This record gives sequence, structure tokens and C-alpha cells, in this order.
Amino acid sequence: MSNPVLVEVTRGNRVESRHRGAVIVVDGAGRTVFAVGDVDHATFPRSACKAMQALPLVESGAADAYGFGNRELALASSSHSGEPEHAALAAAMLKAAGRSEADLECGAHWSFEQKVLNNQARTLERPTALHNNCSGKHSGFICAVCHSGRDPKGYVAYEHPLQAEIRDVMADLTGSPLDRDNCGTDGCSIPTYAVPLKSLAHGFAKMTTGQGIGTERAKASRRIMEACMAEPFFVAGTDRACTRLMKVAPGRIFAKTGAEGVFCAAVPELGYAVALKCDDGATRAAESMVAGILARLLAEDADVSAQLLEMANHTMRNWNGMEVGRVEITDALFVPV
Amino acid sequence: MSNPVLVEVTRGNRVESRHRGAVIVVDGAGRTVFAVGDVDHATFPRSACKAMQALPLVESGAADAYGFGNRELALASSSHSGEPEHAALAAAMLKAAGRSEADLECGAHWSFEQKVLNNQARTLERPTALHNNCSGKHSGFICAVCHSGRDPKGYVAYEHPLQAEIRDVMADLTGSPLDRDNCGTDGCSIPTYAVPLKSLAHGFAKMTTGQGIGTERAKASRRIMEACMAEPFFVAGTDRACTRLMKVAPGRIFAKTGAEGVFCAAVPELGYAVALKCDDGATRAAESMVAGILARLLAEDADVSAQLLEMANHTMRNWNGMEVGRVEITDALFVPV
Repeated sequence: MSNPVLVEVTRGNRVESRHRGAVIVVDGAGRTVFAVGDVDHATFPRSACKAMQALPLVESGAADAYGFGNRELALASSSHSGEPEHAALAAAMLKAAGRSEADLECGAHWSFEQKVLNNQARTLERPTALHNNCSGKHSGFICAVCHSGRDPKGYVAYEHPLQAEIRDVMADLTGSPLDRDNCGTDGCSIPTYAVPLKSLAHGFAKMTTGQGIGTERAKASRRIMEACMAEPFFVAGTDRACTRLMKVAPGRIFAKTGAEGVFCAAVPELGYAVALKCDDGATRAAESMVAGILARLLAEDADVSAQLLEMANHTMRNWNGMEVGRVEITDALFVPV
Repeated sequence: MSNPVLVEVTRGNRVESRHRGAVIVVDGAGRTVFAVGDVDHATFPRSACKAMQALPLVESGAADAYGFGNRELALASSSHSGEPEHAALAAAMLKAAGRSEADLECGAHWSFEQKVLNNQARTLERPTALHNNCSGKHSGFICAVCHSGRDPKGYVAYEHPLQAEIRDVMADLTGSPLDRDNCGTDGCSIPTYAVPLKSLAHGFAKMTTGQGIGTERAKASRRIMEACMAEPFFVAGTDRACTRLMKVAPGRIFAKTGAEGVFCAAVPELGYAVALKCDDGATRAAESMVAGILARLLAEDADVSAQLLEMANHTMRNWNGMEVGRVEITDALFVPV
């Protein structure tokens, strides 16, 4: 019944903590390339599916109308750290649509990244909605809505036409129904829908390969994923996993994290996409899992694979810089298919 | 083989994440009152055993010589948030022994608590060792060593006489051997030793009841645990779980967290102690587990039990204050013995 242990955290010569999870790799036709754990289990993708949610921005023509390039599309697909560049670009996107921070319905929070938070504490009285890690996605939402001549007010609600449009897009990509029954509310107040990991991976494989989706959607999908790969800082931020993963092999790896231990990724040259979930929701484990599975997929490139394995298996140091333990993926991630 | 799911995190009408773990409650004689999961598994207690590590400070006579009261003993047993009161008291303890921050070997880090970190960022260029969550324990170590006329230099090392003394104390309490084989290095650079959860719980039950340990050790143990219960702010800090748990029923609950999902607790009036570990190391889950098991132990006091259950089972809200999910203990924590 339980998923296998995919990541172990060691201290001294002992395993201190264990993370279980499920991982699937599929191709554009939805064929399973690799799977471990219960990949049919319905999982909230959370922020891992932001590139899917950005499709209306491109497909509606809003991105072109407002002159958005790679950076704006990357930010629209991002969970950013709230660094000044992120907040400024979100503000500029809103301005292009004649809107402002006041239209954002994502709420405000301090950065999750300690260095960024330190800076924020020293320069801001409090964070605004522009600093919310989802402000790029929300700015993209508002742009898509405004370009279509609709009222952005309430754009986060299940009933708003934009969210209905996103449901249609995601149902097309994942092949899974999205409705009130599998709906939860995300941290930024928009709906999130639990779908099987396998469906989520298939959705990203379709976006990557263009298989099984219309020409326009395939084109928009490629544009968004290429934007993310071209501007990885705007998908996450300084020292963040998504940014680091995409910098390892520019243009060859797409990677996007989601809350509660979800990660989605794609390797365009192989036409494969990955979806995974750490059972307990741990980000550290999901990051090791995705780096490990990408290393496996790109094993033929020894240099890239080695860099990814260094991200998957890494040393933990204490406040004095002493090596105290390791985070390591288990052999379960390397079982032959 | 795998431990049961003890905490579930829900979103919408679905379980989003699951935390497995092991929990044991024992009495002063070492009899199991309740157990779930593999409680014989060797587990690093990390900071959950700080009250044990504070015994040399009291038993050596240092605490009396330096005029330490409840606050100092609570801080010596603490993982504090680095609030100004914590740092100031650690500095005062060191001063009492003619020492200073320069003697601390724990390293420095920014507070783990966002509100405290914000304050620190605004008032400090960088944190000092006094702000390290372990600075109270380390100050206690230095006081114990100095009072005995020994050199504190290198007091964090396995070979230092203080660490040998701590091994003796902990072996006496837990009945488990502590040596290089089960030794790891903790975040603050001192050794930590993996012992079965059952042994760890028995150690705290001995401290709570005085059973099976000498009169002097029993007296020192009671003094330390009573100090923690009397000054819960100095054991952790504002809004922290240990502090909140001990405030629910003053003098009736001892609780101490450890990194990687460990928690120890005691209920003196019952003569019981608790030790638990969340497999994946999640603090949120360990906090729910300990609150749940304490609610079970104190079930006869409806008011206290209800407050503890509110800590165990609580709502998660997003940045707009909307209820998005729950953290809840499972029935496995309430299986009849």
C-alpha cells in the first residue's frame, strides 16, 4: 500500500529520516517510460502546473498584445522568491494591461527564502501582493482577462470565466476531469484540482511534444516552456531548485516545483515529462527526486548527469560548516523498467 | 515494515500529504503504556534531550554557584527562537562564569521564526552565536565546565570530558549505550547519539518520576523539568509549540522538540513520558503527534484535552485567510492499548 522510500537523510552512519513518494515519466503518447509508487493516485499539482495555467495568456493573444517576451512568460509560470526583479516585472505586466497591484487577489507574504526575506525586512515595511510567489501567474491571469475585455474582479474564483478556461485547458492536457469534486483552494486562492500523477506527467509530455493537442496549443505550450528554460531566474530565483535545474542544461530541462512535495519536469529532446510527489510534502525530498530522475533520463550526457546527481545527493552542513549528513536518493529511483 | 500514518494534511476533500511515525509512552519502570510503530528503532533525539544534557550543570553545583533560577535552567534546556530575551539571558549566564559569546562553539544562524528573523534583520548586521537556538544549552555547558575548573575550549568534541559526562548521564537515563558507533554530529556541533525511542521515553520517565536513578540525579532532574514548565518561553519562544504546550496546563506538561521530527514530553502527575519521531522529519507532524498523545493522556481533563486536540488538529489558511485544509492526527494515535 505504501509508496517506496525514494530519499534518505543520513546523519553519522545512520539513516535519520525517510521520504516516500511516487514518480512517473511518460512520453507524448502517454506511455509510461518509468514509474515507481502509486502514480494513479490523485494529487494536487499546486504550483507545478503553472505553465499549463499560463496558456490562456498566450492563446488569448494577450501576451503578444502586451509585448511579453520570455521573461514575462517565465514569470507567469513562476513561483518566484519575491526578489526585486520579480516584483518589478509583475508590476510592469499589470501596467501593460492598465492594471496595478491593487487588482492582484493572491494575498501578500514575506519571501520564503531567508536571504531575500532579510533584504525585504530591511527595505520594506511589509510585503505587497507583488512579492507573493504567485504574483507573476496572477499578473498573467489579469492580463489574459483584460485583453479579452472582461472584468478581472474575482478572477481567482471557481466561477470566473478564466478559471473555467483553465479547467478546459488542463482537462485537455491531462485527460482528467476537473470539477468541484477534485477541487481544493491553493495558497494564492485559485482552485487546484487533484489529478493522477500519470495524467499530470502526460499533460506536460503533450506540452513538450505537441502530441495530441491542437497546433495553436502546441505552439503556445512550446513558447511558454522555452521561455521558462530561457529565463530560469524568473521561474523561481537565486539559488532555487527550478532555476538551478534549468541552468544545468540550458534549453534541455524544464522544471517546476509545487507546494507539498510536487515536481513536474520535461526533457524536450526525449519527448518525456516527469511528475512526482513526495508523500509527506517535503520540498527537500521532491528536489532530490526530480534531480535524480532527470540524471537518469540524461544519463548519456555524463557531465549533465553528474551535475544533476550532485543536486540529488548532497551534503548537509551545520552552523560551523561541519559535514553532518547527506540527503540521498535510493536505488528505487534507478530500478530498470 | 513501515510505520503507520499518524498525521494527515488535507486540502479540499482530499488528503494531500501523509506523515508516518512511531510514538511510545512509558512509565518510570519502563513499562509501555502505549506504542505505535517501530519504537525500538534507533533515533537521534537531537534537541529533544536537552533537559538530559543540562544535568551536569545542576549536578556539578554550577547552577547554584552562579545563582541560576528557573529561567537559566529552562534556557539551558531550550531550542530558543533567538529573541532578544533569549540572547540576553545566554550572555548573562556566560558572564556569571566569567566567559562570553566568544567561548560559544555552536555557530551562528538567523532565527528560524519569521517574525523574529524580520526583527533581527532590522536590528542586527548578522546574528551571533548568542542567537543560535542552542546558545542556552551551550552557555550551560560552559558554566558546568568552568565551575569544575576545566578549560571549556573544545567542549563540543566527543573527547571533551563534558561530553563523556553527558554520555554517562544519558546512558544511565536511557539504559542504552552511547558511543562512536551510534554517534552523529548535531546542528550545534556536539555529538548526538541514536537510541531507541523506547529508551528515550524511559529516560524522561525516570527524570519525571525519579525511579531507577540516584537521589541527587532525581532531584536535579525534577528541578530542570520544573524550571522548563515554569518558564516555557525560555524553552522555545513566542508562538512556539513547546511553549504553547506547556502553557496549556502549567506544571502538568513538559515538552521538548528536536530537529527532524522528534518530540519528547512528560506528564509528571501520571509518571509517564513520551518519545516520538516522524519518519520524514517534519516538525508540523511531530507537533500534531505530541499534542494528540498528550490529549489522550490527559483525556480526563476535558478542557486541557480539548486545547491539546485543537493544537493537534488545526486549520491551514492561505495568504488571504481562507481555510484551505487541515492538519489532523489519525485514529492510529487513539488505538486502545
